[in-house]
Amino acid sequence: MAAKIAMIGGGSWATAIVKMLSDNISPKEIYWWMRNEEAIAHIRAFKHNPSYLSSVEIKLPEKNISSDIAAIIKQADYVVLNVPAAFLKATLKGVSAADLKGKKIVSAIKGIVPDENLIIGEFLNQKYQVPLKDVLVISGPCHAEEVALEKLSYLTIASTDVALANDFASLLATRYIKTNVSDDIFGTEYAAVLKNIYAVASGICHGVGYGDNFQAVLISNAIREIKDFVDAVHPIDRDIIESAYLGDLLVTAYSQFSRNRTFGNMIGKGYTVKSAQLEMNMIAEGYYAASCMYHINQKYKVEMPISNAVYNILYKFHPPHAEMRLLTEKLN
Amino acid sequence: MAAKIAMIGGGSWATAIVKMLSDNISPKEIYWWMRNEEAIAHIRAFKHNPSYLSSVEIKLPEKNISSDIAAIIKQADYVVLNVPAAFLKATLKGVSAADLKGKKIVSAIKGIVPDENLIIGEFLNQKYQVPLKDVLVISGPCHAEEVALEKLSYLTIASTDVALANDFASLLATRYIKTNVSDDIFGTEYAAVLKNIYAVASGICHGVGYGDNFQAVLISNAIREIKDFVDAVHPIDRDIIESAYLGDLLVTAYSQFSRNRTFGNMIGKGYTVKSAQLEMNMIAEGYYAASCMYHINQKYKVEMPISNAVYNILYKFHPPHAEMRLLTEKLN
Repeated sequence: MAAKIAMIGGGSWATAIVKMLSDNISPKEIYWWMRNEEAIAHIRAFKHNPSYLSSVEIKLPEKNISSDIAAIIKQADYVVLNVPAAFLKATLKGVSAADLKGKKIVSAIKGIVPDENLIIGEFLNQKYQVPLKDVLVISGPCHAEEVALEKLSYLTIASTDVALANDFASLLATRYIKTNVSDDIFGTEYAAVLKNIYAVASGICHGVGYGDNFQAVLISNAIREIKDFVDAVHPIDRDIIESAYLGDLLVTAYSQFSRNRTFGNMIGKGYTVKSAQLEMNMIAEGYYAASCMYHINQKYKVEMPISNAVYNILYKFHPPHAEMRLLTEKLN
Repeated sequence: MAAKIAMIGGGSWATAIVKMLSDNISPKEIYWWMRNEEAIAHIRAFKHNPSYLSSVEIKLPEKNISSDIAAIIKQADYVVLNVPAAFLKATLKGVSAADLKGKKIVSAIKGIVPDENLIIGEFLNQKYQVPLKDVLVISGPCHAEEVALEKLSYLTIASTDVALANDFASLLATRYIKTNVSDDIFGTEYAAVLKNIYAVASGICHGVGYGDNFQAVLISNAIREIKDFVDAVHPIDRDIIESAYLGDLLVTAYSQFSRNRTFGNMIGKGYTVKSAQLEMNMIAEGYYAASCMYHINQKYKVEMPISNAVYNILYKFHPPHAEMRLLTEKLN
């Protein structure tokens, strides 16, 4: 029986996953929602997303692409949420709990819902009565740009129901995509969120003038913060050096292409948050994540000096130079 | 009382440590042995090492620099060994067990003694009757080039006698060097050796055409191999994400300047070992380490697919493309 999958979101990560699903040989129907009508018309006419991963050929039937979110979701067994976390509430405005009932919801968001300070699974559970066992998380290490180039990448699919994770993984695997499964939706989602904060930190340190030696110390301490935090929130037996945790941090923090690192670098060089955001013309997820995680951690009180330093610089306007010098005293 | 320290070796890491010791404010006398008489004459005349980190000013009295190794060692309480592992036996040819008696021996080598397949501490213990409690290991993450630039770096000093490690650490700390101590000489030395093999692997994968997504998976699996191996050799309660283990791997594997990564990249692009070595005109430690570790692991039989793949490519002439494709099936 053909799996029916709805992709919600029109960015590069959504385009990359549509490509994987299309290249995977299991029978399936793919539906794609995006907000932008011009992009839809362009994809229908030319088979390429005009704004993201434009080299990727989109092989979907024209009628499967639409800006009517309720109609798209209605067709699907799996709904893949793939918009920036900050836009999730607005995106789901016309969607009711009944619309999502019985469907498996896959988070490809790697973010925290602002104001709510909930990871996607919790948010869907509390606001849309989606049972946690029907929630999946897709995590990297995976730059969408390399999927477009069909460079070998490993994804981790997490769900408390590992059989479900395996089912969905079998829809994604291709010649260039290998999949792991995990039962750790909390750890996987939080690690994916936190890594963006550390990529900002990495950029700030580079901007301020620290070198590769310090960067290695920063990242070793960052993976410890991730471990300590996810162990506090959801204490299960997990191995933090797995690629869904450590690998995802590495690909983001060490990439010259990471927008979070670029954003941090501009902050380190003295740009204000506003001017860095204007200059980049895109959202650095780590900016929002730093605030969300700061507030979530008020409850858990895990020691997170790097994450706190980023918060202090971005939201309390501490000078990056001074804040990072203080941070160096807390690392080892 | 002034500590008396002999540096054995004239390369960039030796020059970097001489700089740290000189900039550190504890009273001390520094003696420096190197083989090359011309370099000694140059340093005496111009206060700079002509071949390595030439920007660093050498502040030692002329008489403290010599090519007479026995005379240099005689002066010292601490003897810092800092020549490539492959040259250690030749370097120590004129040195007897009696010459080393009562001295603390610091390994800055990060290598295995070829033929013997012993780490430096074991070699000194077996061949020179140096008690293991008198052995120290200096480990990174630390590129010597960044020490020359006074970029903030963290070193780990390991010794089974932690008080001794603290003593030596207090001779190294400066404005730009922070120190950690550890009691794990085996794990620290083996991790420092293994990371060079993984830097070669990283270079090979880059040369063959894998991207950043795969690189992150490779390094996550590499730190697992390091953990599994050092846990098998010397099972103590260690945390592999500490900067002496993970950080040291990161700074080497992710650096464009790492000679091991450069060497691997050439192999991946199709150079033979011989032509890559000629082209680089320097030793990639990972080349020797791959063979030593392969043979040492015959005893422990730890699963080390990455390390084995590098061995197969370098010593059994397996085509890098095919060997790495086989490797991708073993990672996750």
